[in-house]
Amino acid sequence: MKESMHTLKYTRDWHPESIAVDIGSTRVGNGHFLLAAGPCAVESPSQMTAISTYLKETPVGLLRGGAFKPRTSPYAFQGLGEEALILLKEAAGSLKIPFITEVTDVNHLDTIVRYADALQVGSRNMSSYELLKTVARQNLPIILKRGMSATVEEFLFAVEYIADAGNHQIILCERGIRSFDTAFRNVLDLGAVAYLKKQTPFPVIVDPSHGSGRSDLVLSLSLAAVAAGADGVMIETHPNPESALSDGPQSLDPAAFDNWWHQVEALARHLGHNI
Amino acid sequence: MKESMHTLKYTRDWHPESIAVDIGSTRVGNGHFLLAAGPCAVESPSQMTAISTYLKETPVGLLRGGAFKPRTSPYAFQGLGEEALILLKEAAGSLKIPFITEVTDVNHLDTIVRYADALQVGSRNMSSYELLKTVARQNLPIILKRGMSATVEEFLFAVEYIADAGNHQIILCERGIRSFDTAFRNVLDLGAVAYLKKQTPFPVIVDPSHGSGRSDLVLSLSLAAVAAGADGVMIETHPNPESALSDGPQSLDPAAFDNWWHQVEALARHLGHNI
Amino acid sequence: MKESMHTLKYTRDWHPESIAVDIGSTRVGNGHFLLAAGPCAVESPSQMTAISTYLKETPVGLLRGGAFKPRTSPYAFQGLGEEALILLKEAAGSLKIPFITEVTDVNHLDTIVRYADALQVGSRNMSSYELLKTVARQNLPIILKRGMSATVEEFLFAVEYIADAGNHQIILCERGIRSFDTAFRNVLDLGAVAYLKKQTPFPVIVDPSHGSGRSDLVLSLSLAAVAAGADGVMIETHPNPESALSDGPQSLDPAAFDNWWHQVEALARHLGHNI
Amino acid sequence: MKESMHTLKYTRDWHPESIAVDIGSTRVGNGHFLLAAGPCAVESPSQMTAISTYLKETPVGLLRGGAFKPRTSPYAFQGLGEEALILLKEAAGSLKIPFITEVTDVNHLDTIVRYADALQVGSRNMSSYELLKTVARQNLPIILKRGMSATVEEFLFAVEYIADAGNHQIILCERGIRSFDTAFRNVLDLGAVAYLKKQTPFPVIVDPSHGSGRSDLVLSLSLAAVAAGADGVMIETHPNPESALSDGPQSLDPAAFDNWWHQVEALARHLGHNI
Repeated sequence: MKESMHTLKYTRDWHPESIAVDIGSTRVGNGHFLLAAGPCAVESPSQMTAISTYLKETPVGLLRGGAFKPRTSPYAFQGLGEEALILLKEAAGSLKIPFITEVTDVNHLDTIVRYADALQVGSRNMSSYELLKTVARQNLPIILKRGMSATVEEFLFAVEYIADAGNHQIILCERGIRSFDTAFRNVLDLGAVAYLKKQTPFPVIVDPSHGSGRSDLVLSLSLAAVAAGADGVMIETHPNPESALSDGPQSLDPAAFDNWWHQVEALARHLGHNI
Repeated sequence: MKESMHTLKYTRDWHPESIAVDIGSTRVGNGHFLLAAGPCAVESPSQMTAISTYLKETPVGLLRGGAFKPRTSPYAFQGLGEEALILLKEAAGSLKIPFITEVTDVNHLDTIVRYADALQVGSRNMSSYELLKTVARQNLPIILKRGMSATVEEFLFAVEYIADAGNHQIILCERGIRSFDTAFRNVLDLGAVAYLKKQTPFPVIVDPSHGSGRSDLVLSLSLAAVAAGADGVMIETHPNPESALSDGPQSLDPAAFDNWWHQVEALARHLGHNI
Repeated sequence: MKESMHTLKYTRDWHPESIAVDIGSTRVGNGHFLLAAGPCAVESPSQMTAISTYLKETPVGLLRGGAFKPRTSPYAFQGLGEEALILLKEAAGSLKIPFITEVTDVNHLDTIVRYADALQVGSRNMSSYELLKTVARQNLPIILKRGMSATVEEFLFAVEYIADAGNHQIILCERGIRSFDTAFRNVLDLGAVAYLKKQTPFPVIVDPSHGSGRSDLVLSLSLAAVAAGADGVMIETHPNPESALSDGPQSLDPAAFDNWWHQVEALARHLGHNI
Repeated sequence: MKESMHTLKYTRDWHPESIAVDIGSTRVGNGHFLLAAGPCAVESPSQMTAISTYLKETPVGLLRGGAFKPRTSPYAFQGLGEEALILLKEAAGSLKIPFITEVTDVNHLDTIVRYADALQVGSRNMSSYELLKTVARQNLPIILKRGMSATVEEFLFAVEYIADAGNHQIILCERGIRSFDTAFRNVLDLGAVAYLKKQTPFPVIVDPSHGSGRSDLVLSLSLAAVAAGADGVMIETHPNPESALSDGPQSLDPAAFDNWWHQVEALARHLGHNI
């Protein structure tokens, strides 16, 4: 009995073929590559208008943006809340793509599900199992980020909490783990991506913005993620990173963003993905 | 402005003297040393009766026990819920000491506060800031455990979330951090304890059970915690560790428990603590 | 004065253009991509004959093989010593490529330099600064592996020990760092590769065999290394990994090796490298 | 056969009782507690005279000091070499205690053994197995420091390299391991000390100076080490830490040193040690 308690159910043994997850009209996985982009935090209407302008006519298939922001300091900017959701909905509408935002507390869920096309569970909450189960019941696609010090086994068990609650629209996201080297915010673990692709049928994407904390490394790590077998890349961008209220140092400015998507798209297509 | 966002408020500058926190009739900190003990998870009436028997007439001032258990695997034992709270209340009553249990989700709070004398926020939830704020509003003492990969600065900022919500009955608990060496479940960071005692006026206790994952190291690490300046030690005990539904390998059996409290009490008294 | 003690000299400020390092007739860096392969340890003439057979007519430009093996246990196989060097020399001769082997002690140097075309300083010795200085004086190209818990800054300072001793034929090798997740032997840090390429003019290669410890992840991580901007990939291969005296689980068998070099070469060429 | 290669020989199974190691007239282990102190690096005659003055008439039983200093940067102070050995010999003579210094390279050995009473192998060299074997043959007591990212198993295997070379005058030294939290230089792993005491019959001491990197934590961690069961504590002290050429922030000044030894001696005696 002990054995079965600790055995993963939702592996390639359960479903040998790769599963594609649809977020609105955007398909992710099983040959469909996702480019997701947006600001760390939604800050203002003008910020979102600027982002919409340079995201337009790119292959980005999912807008991301923070409304309720978990911050290390209680005195730091905590997000615009529902106002951010309204701005994301407008921007996503104008771009004709879906949007995703992070759920940090069950009490925000009712508000969030009125707007969002998909729900993100962030790194800090990967092991908040009650939250996982509640989020799973919303019948929306979920991007689950790996905890910053979670083993791949723990990550896969967190996936089980969602899958076992009946929601199989799951996308895993590697976003870097903690290490002794603080030159970088995190160490992006692409070996985990290659390993996860063998274990789970669900799509696996990569967040190289948090995975390095440095905008000058985002392109190289995005290309590496594509080559490692990821099903998508999700990054942070800001019209003016220096003035960003959070995560400026890892956000691509419009020019870097333009270069980024051209190169990532080209490599993904070369390796046989649809975008 | 940025500066102040990232400055701790509730430090020794704010309150130079050590703060004592009262959990029911048990005082912790500022010279009052806490021995806390109990099972990882409440499993049955007979288990709790057995524990009550050997905790009786010891200096243990706080009973601990898990009712809602966060487990890596969704298929593992998840705790008895409210039934556990009833059993803890009975045992604590017979021992004439207060009891504490972990809050893993806001939806359990109403139930828990009907029984518990103090609330624990566990390592997995140290960065669940919305949970911290909600727990803070219950007007009960809180033991906040350090996240398994949280820096001491992040730990202190998590304390700020509680303190800034108006609750100053806070006890910090070092419980070991993740390292590359998996001979042990965690590495107990007693340097952090010594450092935290200088930074924060709130009591700082140590959990050597999770801090090592091995019952044969719990006594040595408890004594080390006392000598490092901790205000208390919280451990796991079980009448029959081999049959425990969780954390058996790190739980003290009755004989080891008996030796443990005698030695810890003796050293704490020698170093000038009240118990 | 303190400042200058801690400033790197041999950066892109010193030499803005990428430096190519020649190992015999094989050029590495500045557009020239290196495929290096061979056994972890040289074990026997028949093993080396087998390897030579399947390395022939591949783009592998450097043979690697261990002669003096540093092993965690003193009771494990420690390498064939000079006999291994003779076998490597023969194999390299038949393949018409140079070979490299690791130097673990200055007392082996005189023997090694009679045979080897390049010298490797391994992860365990990255901070053995006296060894670095002595190796630097041999006037041979050096592959310096990153210590398993070295920061990138410490890695770059180790490079300085060699460069400042007058040897500028240096190739840096990222080989994975220690983490809390022991599902893998190490975590390959491709963010460090992208960062190092910006800081140092010397070539930077990647060892995905040690970087994962699993042969089934070597191809994906090799491709990721290419995409991240590495100047080469060095892997372990064995005619029969199950019987290998060391590192069998991370060694490619002949079929996997064949698939590996075809895919790595194709991606490297696609991204504009010469091989 | 594989099994035996990876089995430790020199454990409590081999020698159930604790072994005492004699360094000159100073006995360490099996009830004899060691206080070792001295500067990180020997800098000048006046520095050593100052240190000798305040070490006199203390229970310090071993003088430590760096002559050949391994430094991250090749441009940092590298030690005075033989001149340092002469100064250490003089100081130790005036204190009537033995002295120890670190061996970083086999080429320094002949010089060092003309002066030193014991040899230290530092953290960076714990896995320099050839160096371990050579040092072992000098017939002097050895303090072997744990590598900064070595598991306890790797540490114990490094001990085997020395023991198997015939030298059983070994003292293990825990000195902190690397973690994600860079508030401290290292995380002192006292769980490892408790564990090592059960596994190995050789004495185990602790270096809380490197174990924290902060002089204000050295006393607390020294007391914790005593309580955890260590056989000694080795610290860095300097007459004027602000002007120290290396490791100033973790060095005790004379006043702090005076308080330190009184408290450590008192606790060690209380717990039954001879000093």
